Amino acid sequence: MKNTIERHKETYLKELEEFLKIQSISAVRAHKSDVKKGAEWVASSLKSMNMENVEVIETDGHPIVYADWLHAEGKPTILIYGHYDVQPADPLDLWETPPFEPVIRDNKIYARGATDDKGQLFIHIKAIELLMQEDGKLPVNVKFCIEGEEEIASPHLGPFIEENTDKLAADAVVISDTSFIKEGLPAICTSLRGALAMEVNVKTANTDLHSGVYGGGVPNAVHSLVRLLDSLHREDGGIAVDGFYEGVPEPTEELREEIARIPSDEEAMKKELGLTSLFGEKGFTFKEQTGIRPTLELNGISGGYQGDGIKTIVPSEATGKISCRLVGDQNPQEIYEKIEKHLLDHQPAGTTMTVNQFIQARPVSLDSNDPMIQKAADAYEEVYGVRALFPKEGGSIPIVEVFARVLEAPVVLMGFGLPSENLHAPNEHFHIENFTKGIETVCTYFKSL
Amino acid sequence: MKNTIERHKETYLKELEEFLKIQSISAVRAHKSDVKKGAEWVASSLKSMNMENVEVIETDGHPIVYADWLHAEGKPTILIYGHYDVQPADPLDLWETPPFEPVIRDNKIYARGATDDKGQLFIHIKAIELLMQEDGKLPVNVKFCIEGEEEIASPHLGPFIEENTDKLAADAVVISDTSFIKEGLPAICTSLRGALAMEVNVKTANTDLHSGVYGGGVPNAVHSLVRLLDSLHREDGGIAVDGFYEGVPEPTEELREEIARIPSDEEAMKKELGLTSLFGEKGFTFKEQTGIRPTLELNGISGGYQGDGIKTIVPSEATGKISCRLVGDQNPQEIYEKIEKHLLDHQPAGTTMTVNQFIQARPVSLDSNDPMIQKAADAYEEVYGVRALFPKEGGSIPIVEVFARVLEAPVVLMGFGLPSENLHAPNEHFHIENFTKGIETVCTYFKSL
Repeated sequence: MKNTIERHKETYLKELEEFLKIQSISAVRAHKSDVKKGAEWVASSLKSMNMENVEVIETDGHPIVYADWLHAEGKPTILIYGHYDVQPADPLDLWETPPFEPVIRDNKIYARGATDDKGQLFIHIKAIELLMQEDGKLPVNVKFCIEGEEEIASPHLGPFIEENTDKLAADAVVISDTSFIKEGLPAICTSLRGALAMEVNVKTANTDLHSGVYGGGVPNAVHSLVRLLDSLHREDGGIAVDGFYEGVPEPTEELREEIARIPSDEEAMKKELGLTSLFGEKGFTFKEQTGIRPTLELNGISGGYQGDGIKTIVPSEATGKISCRLVGDQNPQEIYEKIEKHLLDHQPAGTTMTVNQFIQARPVSLDSNDPMIQKAADAYEEVYGVRALFPKEGGSIPIVEVFARVLEAPVVLMGFGLPSENLHAPNEHFHIENFTKGIETVCTYFKSL
Repeated sequence: MKNTIERHKETYLKELEEFLKIQSISAVRAHKSDVKKGAEWVASSLKSMNMENVEVIETDGHPIVYADWLHAEGKPTILIYGHYDVQPADPLDLWETPPFEPVIRDNKIYARGATDDKGQLFIHIKAIELLMQEDGKLPVNVKFCIEGEEEIASPHLGPFIEENTDKLAADAVVISDTSFIKEGLPAICTSLRGALAMEVNVKTANTDLHSGVYGGGVPNAVHSLVRLLDSLHREDGGIAVDGFYEGVPEPTEELREEIARIPSDEEAMKKELGLTSLFGEKGFTFKEQTGIRPTLELNGISGGYQGDGIKTIVPSEATGKISCRLVGDQNPQEIYEKIEKHLLDHQPAGTTMTVNQFIQARPVSLDSNDPMIQKAADAYEEVYGVRALFPKEGGSIPIVEVFARVLEAPVVLMGFGLPSENLHAPNEHFHIENFTKGIETVCTYFKSL
């Protein structure tokens, strides 16, 4: 197996480069046809390896690609999910080589989407192709469900899953869109935080006012927003919104130990990020704060004069962006309403306030003892010589919770990225060693089922 | 006198239009030669009316124009101050006619600088010309000191005054750069607040961080700044900086009554500005808050993601602009240091902070009982049939305090603008009635001395 992969490696990489050249940026309207090209490229790959029922399914946004091969009687059915869309590439001037002209340097392939998620998705395409070439059939039943809207929070895939439970029914959903702990130390993520985002806008007068003439006598939109946003946190770093922590599970000793086993070097991280100190809710470690505790972050703020020097105005408008990471049974809609209520309860006098909700995703927690997850860990161990750990990730992949809940199937987050691979940033890349070993791991896993 | 002015009115307005066409925007480097043209235009006007010792004095910024006529033996010497520079004109698209193409509509002249201060300065030029034409001499000794940097806080005029006390020595400084209370109700401002401005910048990590991966565990620059800025005010609207109110005089009953006599319609103002309520320090009226009390305003804020929608980052940098209006014995430098100390004392953990100081100006209070001021009020009464009131203005004209302190002379703030004339805003204009009556008032005043 390993030798076959080595023999095909150059061809695989050439194909991956073709995939990476497609500017399938889902967030940017001008790239709509490029995103479609991405879908068609995936569909064409799946067809060429004899997948059946290959479809490019249009949505009100970008298409979903479906394919299956269901002739492994008595064997489990695996739904493979991935996404062919990518993040925007700006700031372009920070890329060493252009984001859509893939280049191999130091055994890494550089391009937007290299690790997130085209490279990781392509592992599955090549693994299935290889298994099919070896035996003319597959050791498991396979369904592909590949979307083009992951980077914009999957607005159409959720409903699609809900409406196609029979078509998508599976014994496990396998996703490669996460990372190792570090090089050589694989991980199967078993928890993702939920997410919630909103914007609050505060207006006072109908125009900015002269601070000499009106200053001290009229409400100030920036001051009002600053007071309002500061009220969201307690002095000790906790979140002051009434009922915010309802549904947040108290971590068991076992969970805390499991988390503590994940290696991390906070001093090195602080140094790398230029931080003089960390911050967060008292009584929890950094890994707990970022893995199993909910957050409320201010993502941005603007109001009044922002140019050089000073403009002595009383500003009339200011806007803040707020987002949360959620855990346990926190429901994004309920949390949104609690925050909205807090903002209304604390609305400064003399202001009009509007709150807009953006994305939301429920948190998800997966059972690391599920056999489908344990067998994936076995496969990693066989290929890498190290058993995968089960970290709790702080990020959100909204669709994971939907798969788990609607299809009632275990989700196996078999990541092959590395945390250092600049996902969502300039110079994104993917380690070719994990690409080839990834194919080997997936083949091993599917054969073991 | 009145008839002579009426007869010359068209000529005067044609000349004023020439003056208003000069784009003497002191804040914009690209207009440096236009500002110089403004100085030369003023100098040439002064020469043509037989002023003596006319000089265009270069500074490290824009020039100061000086001229005098000192042959009124036994009579007081009046120093006339004004400024030939103007505010920037943007946003240009809100002007009904171009800012530097003066137009007369409804007996008002529209152009940038019409009321602030070219139109008001030109009153004095024409008044002196007229007095000279009438008698071949003047009823008082006159010095002109006209600057081109008022709109950028007069960085060079202060030192110039300090270095030229003999040259500028006078029995009164007369300035027309303020406003009536409202149409038909003249005012001699007897108090200007001081000013102080600064910027505070907060940095946390060396880059914005992914809120999923780091959120809840690292300091957030926007949250840090919001907390820091909110700490500057007390819950009740007062300013929380230690020692801020030192040197702020308790208003006497007499002063409060004087202020209460200035007519104002707060309900109408709220309606016009679209405000649902006013705001400010408890225990003071709006006119007191904006006239004789100090303020600390947040003029602007920015940090993190400010575009549409959301970007789930932990922002690494945020900046706020702060300015104060000062009264009584508050010293701008000392107040700056107190605020800086407050910011340092409240610096959130895990942040690096820088504070930059911009402008500063001391507050000034003038004695409304000074005979030079009372005679100006007499002149208004003679021309307008209404005696001028003595309001406390909330704005700052930094150089007024320097004139008063360094030359030890009463400063007479004979304003001829109206509060509705859009100074510093699009569609600035000046009422022609106050231009012609202004010339009459100034002539009457000088004759009375």
